[in-house]
Amino acid sequence: MELTPDFLEHVSTCLQTGNTEALSTSIEGLHPSDLAGIMEDLAAQDALLLYHQLEDSLAADVLTELDEDFREKFLEQISSKEIADQFSEHIDSDDAADILADLPQERQREILAEIQDRELASDIEDLLRYDEDSAGGLMAKELVQINENWDRVTIFNEIRNQAQDIDNVYTVYVVNNDNQLKGILPLKRILLAPDSQPLSDIILDEVVYVNVNSSKEKVAQTMQKYDLVALPVVDANLKLLGRITIDDVVDVIQEEAEKDYQLQAGLSEDVEADDSIAILTRARLPWLLVGLFGGIMGAQVIGRYETEIQLHPEMAFFIPLVAAMGGNAGVQSSAIVVQGIASGNLQHGRLWNKFFKELSIGLINGFVCALVILLYSYFFSRESAELALTVSTAMVAVIVCSSVLGTFIPLTLNRFSVDPALATGPFITTMNDIIGLLLYFSIGRLMYGVFM
Amino acid sequence: MELTPDFLEHVSTCLQTGNTEALSTSIEGLHPSDLAGIMEDLAAQDALLLYHQLEDSLAADVLTELDEDFREKFLEQISSKEIADQFSEHIDSDDAADILADLPQERQREILAEIQDRELASDIEDLLRYDEDSAGGLMAKELVQINENWDRVTIFNEIRNQAQDIDNVYTVYVVNNDNQLKGILPLKRILLAPDSQPLSDIILDEVVYVNVNSSKEKVAQTMQKYDLVALPVVDANLKLLGRITIDDVVDVIQEEAEKDYQLQAGLSEDVEADDSIAILTRARLPWLLVGLFGGIMGAQVIGRYETEIQLHPEMAFFIPLVAAMGGNAGVQSSAIVVQGIASGNLQHGRLWNKFFKELSIGLINGFVCALVILLYSYFFSRESAELALTVSTAMVAVIVCSSVLGTFIPLTLNRFSVDPALATGPFITTMNDIIGLLLYFSIGRLMYGVFM
Repeated sequence: MELTPDFLEHVSTCLQTGNTEALSTSIEGLHPSDLAGIMEDLAAQDALLLYHQLEDSLAADVLTELDEDFREKFLEQISSKEIADQFSEHIDSDDAADILADLPQERQREILAEIQDRELASDIEDLLRYDEDSAGGLMAKELVQINENWDRVTIFNEIRNQAQDIDNVYTVYVVNNDNQLKGILPLKRILLAPDSQPLSDIILDEVVYVNVNSSKEKVAQTMQKYDLVALPVVDANLKLLGRITIDDVVDVIQEEAEKDYQLQAGLSEDVEADDSIAILTRARLPWLLVGLFGGIMGAQVIGRYETEIQLHPEMAFFIPLVAAMGGNAGVQSSAIVVQGIASGNLQHGRLWNKFFKELSIGLINGFVCALVILLYSYFFSRESAELALTVSTAMVAVIVCSSVLGTFIPLTLNRFSVDPALATGPFITTMNDIIGLLLYFSIGRLMYGVFM
Repeated sequence: MELTPDFLEHVSTCLQTGNTEALSTSIEGLHPSDLAGIMEDLAAQDALLLYHQLEDSLAADVLTELDEDFREKFLEQISSKEIADQFSEHIDSDDAADILADLPQERQREILAEIQDRELASDIEDLLRYDEDSAGGLMAKELVQINENWDRVTIFNEIRNQAQDIDNVYTVYVVNNDNQLKGILPLKRILLAPDSQPLSDIILDEVVYVNVNSSKEKVAQTMQKYDLVALPVVDANLKLLGRITIDDVVDVIQEEAEKDYQLQAGLSEDVEADDSIAILTRARLPWLLVGLFGGIMGAQVIGRYETEIQLHPEMAFFIPLVAAMGGNAGVQSSAIVVQGIASGNLQHGRLWNKFFKELSIGLINGFVCALVILLYSYFFSRESAELALTVSTAMVAVIVCSSVLGTFIPLTLNRFSVDPALATGPFITTMNDIIGLLLYFSIGRLMYGVFM
């Protein structure tokens, strides 16, 4: 739904005048995600009033849907006891851990202490300990599991029993007496099975799973490759620890892709247009300063050719062209490598093949651009032949050089476990600018030296 | 699984020597997605042999998992009858339509004509007619649906009956006599319901759905927002037409994010590192040429200041700095807007607010960069005060100007239904370069005029 200012104003008026009846009518049937959107747009006071108008289980769903930054502030107004009760009754362990992870340690301990069910409290504490970028950080402890040795009646009772408290159940997990994952039983199979068929017949024993320490990228790749909606998580002994559902992974996939985009744009944090000026400046200034120092280095490089520029000021005309082409060609080839690494599609080995391929592409692109420059200067420009030759030769050199560098820099970063996406950001682009300038002026000195 | 060259060689040897027993052992239990990966890495001949070794239903799954480009070529070796049989028996209508969409029209007709089940053939033809970027292009016709007026026994029989042919069933859709969507019944609810409870009691009547003409971005946003694994698709009269499953949407989300990244990097097609030199060049050259023409325009701009450069060649030193900073600052602010539009988070209206916000951020960033320039030139540089003042003043002007432009260009593109992500690509960056140069040299002419 679209949240109009009028609707928000209406909600706000209802809250302030205590007109709960009109309020209920307006928000009836709204999805928790929509209610979360409304709360985020209301004044803090009103958001709290609205939250307390909601039924407990709905309020819990809204809590998990709230934007993290908003939630962190919002929870300052809610007692630890109240949050603990929500965790006990209505919130899955993974969401509870996510909510706690954003709060100060002191507050975390307070809330955990208020949870009556000690097993749940220790489950949540367990989850908090996993790296938030690992499978353990994504998984929920809640799942439906049955023992392979149970009889039919026990199995059905257990499934009904366990499934009651879990929001989304697609699959039942089958374990042995040591709690090791032995198979899965999709709900569809259970529904389709004739009453006479032993359940052991319909268990699928080829199960895709991940280790609890796998990276979230690995989790996302696995679920995407095998088209899964839920993925079991095991420890080193194949003991079943939890499961990851696709909704959490969709967010991971999107965040990963957005992170690369932001790095490329020179944003050092995940920012949104609605963030404050201070946050937006903090995300942008660092990369501007990187560009600034690159530019100062570029100035030093050009400064060494002051005499040439005084003699042939027309050489300066093409400085932005050379710098931009180096940057552009480098980012293009880096971006292809970065996406290949991210998707896991990139073939390993055969570095020479990669080198020759980039060399060929760089040469083709370089020669086409050089040709355009030569044609332009022959037909439209009053500049000298030396300049045309310098610019076009530099064009080939710069494009080839930055294409090849653009391929190998992300590969190298990746080898040293640095995020390869850095290669498409301002840092490397700036470096390519400088290399381009060096090539251009060296070639220029040579050309003018030869021909004059 | 990791495909090692040794394993591939082993598979290839088995295929060529006709050692089907050893082959079966090697590939036993492999997921269709892994088998597709193996086929893509084998020689065309071997891939065909392997395909024909597989059981029909497994072969069908492999077919849907194959990379599109590979599949298009591979299917040239398979008879239309064989493909039609796979569609009839083992492939969902949406996958069938996707497979057909990549084939020549002539071949499409041939295959459709071979399908015995005329209803299925017309279902697939229907799907082919929808825009592939719409909900209709993503949906499958296969789903489990029950009529709200059926009795309990009929409902259970129908669910069992219909679910048999469908891979993933999470939810049963409830329609009225006019086939209009009235509610959903998650499998979990059916399993948990006591035998005595009427099914009408457990039907959820608040259903999230999309219109068949909705964009795939809308579909992705909806499923992500409401954490859905399946989304029903209806026509304008709310008649149920099909359903979209999350696995297709995960691909959409990733493609969308990658498209922006590629546009930003100056790649005009979705390319991978493994593509041919011709394809990679075709994706890269157009944007290099855009940059090239931008550079030539930049040269024209600088050319107008030839006299200044001859008198003050040191002005040329900072050309790359000015150009790069304009580009960087512009891309930063555009990227934030582009992501805001993509995620649907961007607040509409209040253009003045946006303007003042960008102005403030631009001024802060600009003044910090200008200060760095002044400090650098005071302590480390032997250049004149005029130059330092020119560069630092230009810095503020350029950063402010391109930050503000960077915010409004994607907003404007979006208003005219052009992909706003174009704003972070080389085109706008190049434009920012040129504006930056104009500002720099105008300010330079002024400064040197005033102080000398």
